Amino acid sequence: MIRPTVSHETGAIYEFTPDLEAIETVESGTELTIDTRDSLDGAVQSDSDVLESVPEEVNAATGPIAVSDAEPGDVLRVEIEAIRLAEDHGRVVTIDGFGLLDGDEAIDAPRTRMTPVDGDSDEHTISFDDLEVPVAPVIGTIGVAPDAESYTTLVPHDHGGNLDTTDITVGNTVYLPVFQSGAMLAMGDCKAAMADGEMCGTGAEIACEIDVTLEVIDGDDAAVDLERPLVETDDAWKPLASAETLEEACKLANRDAISLLAAEHGFDDTEAYMVSSLVGGLEISQVVDPLVTVRNAIPKTYLSSPF
Amino acid sequence: MIRPTVSHETGAIYEFTPDLEAIETVESGTELTIDTRDSLDGAVQSDSDVLESVPEEVNAATGPIAVSDAEPGDVLRVEIEAIRLAEDHGRVVTIDGFGLLDGDEAIDAPRTRMTPVDGDSDEHTISFDDLEVPVAPVIGTIGVAPDAESYTTLVPHDHGGNLDTTDITVGNTVYLPVFQSGAMLAMGDCKAAMADGEMCGTGAEIACEIDVTLEVIDGDDAAVDLERPLVETDDAWKPLASAETLEEACKLANRDAISLLAAEHGFDDTEAYMVSSLVGGLEISQVVDPLVTVRNAIPKTYLSSPF
Repeated sequence: MIRPTVSHETGAIYEFTPDLEAIETVESGTELTIDTRDSLDGAVQSDSDVLESVPEEVNAATGPIAVSDAEPGDVLRVEIEAIRLAEDHGRVVTIDGFGLLDGDEAIDAPRTRMTPVDGDSDEHTISFDDLEVPVAPVIGTIGVAPDAESYTTLVPHDHGGNLDTTDITVGNTVYLPVFQSGAMLAMGDCKAAMADGEMCGTGAEIACEIDVTLEVIDGDDAAVDLERPLVETDDAWKPLASAETLEEACKLANRDAISLLAAEHGFDDTEAYMVSSLVGGLEISQVVDPLVTVRNAIPKTYLSSPF
Repeated sequence: MIRPTVSHETGAIYEFTPDLEAIETVESGTELTIDTRDSLDGAVQSDSDVLESVPEEVNAATGPIAVSDAEPGDVLRVEIEAIRLAEDHGRVVTIDGFGLLDGDEAIDAPRTRMTPVDGDSDEHTISFDDLEVPVAPVIGTIGVAPDAESYTTLVPHDHGGNLDTTDITVGNTVYLPVFQSGAMLAMGDCKAAMADGEMCGTGAEIACEIDVTLEVIDGDDAAVDLERPLVETDDAWKPLASAETLEEACKLANRDAISLLAAEHGFDDTEAYMVSSLVGGLEISQVVDPLVTVRNAIPKTYLSSPF
């Protein structure tokens, strides 16, 4: 069987809206390849290509892809099997008005630094002067059609979107709440490498091909009502929350962690809150998008699958 | 040679002030054992011992210990060799007016949960209902006499204090800026286990004996002027910053990471900022103290010792 491919050339969105129209429809269980362009749509190809402001359209997300039988209240499981670099260089940029240290006089914006890809496919690195950074690809933007509001692909929220989370990578699985029939998945904005925080406003932005398997989980089979994205890594479950401030995002992510712990162990919320204060903990995804994203890791030792 | 011991019974402080007086003076290079009591001074010994409010005196820090020849501008190196539990139980508490979810109607405060220590000394665990959590001890409060302001042991700042950072543990090394002659080190507030974030306001608070080696580093030998605490783990350097908001703490920690990267690689600040956005990243220490603490990890692959 030929693995179906969905390309950004067929369709890509710059806004997650409640009424997205699919460019492709697949069955639950489909193994799919998704081609993405870089977050800046190829506009930055050398150090002299600088961005005077954040482009009006950014983080093109390939899709939307409808998954048959996904209905509001269900959960869309996206298993990330591979992320292949589709260019021989990434790029890091600073942009005036964007980034953690925006306004700091010692920081120069706009500036661009191309990061060439070296090595063979088993051990790719990107270079930055004398530094060789192992490629650890991240899907920056991944989401579904939201419930009621619309969100550009620059921001994250309960539907996913620009989550910029290093754990959204090869071998891990993202669970997204389904708000609209078909879910309407879209993704893009990959990085060859990114720090937790994405402080300067980008990682090493790069076009990629992503292999995923999509599966619809009946909402009735879930131990909790999933309201926001959840990531499964090798050793932890991590609810993700995005909000205006890190404090607010921490509260939401912690509340979701408490719900998961309470559902599994029969704890009341206070007991689950206490346990959340002992194991795993809060992690920063990104601080720049401009809504910020936090995750609350719970090691699998203390939590099994809620699905 | 008998290893000198400093006990909380000889002296402990509840406030880091610029004019601390030492209860003990040691030479640079001294291997020392420091006995600490639990952060709540033994007031909580059963689930029925609840705290109506945050005690006026909390986080007793054993000391101050003067280190000969430490002068303002120097750096105090604190290598943590062992942390032994000195009680057979820890305790987790919620307190009205304290904690990430303070005011949440589903969270009950005050409440106390004792966490008995099980297993032998090689594989201690604490139990919380059916959960067994491996002991991973943390020194919650560690600091020196500050420059000009005074800080109770409830809050963290540039002098250290209530940093509540999981990386301040066995095998790691804390570097503190010296602001006053003798440095005036004090520490306490240990936890048998704690999540990044310390969301409910405590870990499993417990009395401990801590083995450290203290060493004075001449400030002139440092690649950067250390303004805030820095932690060295097996594989990373992590500047720590505390501030009113997580956003502000992120900025300070990132700025310190940039200084370290720039000093090592000859980067300008913008290049170092870009690299900080590619490797390691921002981590949450605690969100409750009520100043909050963030660290910016830089893997040792990209950074050697600044001292």
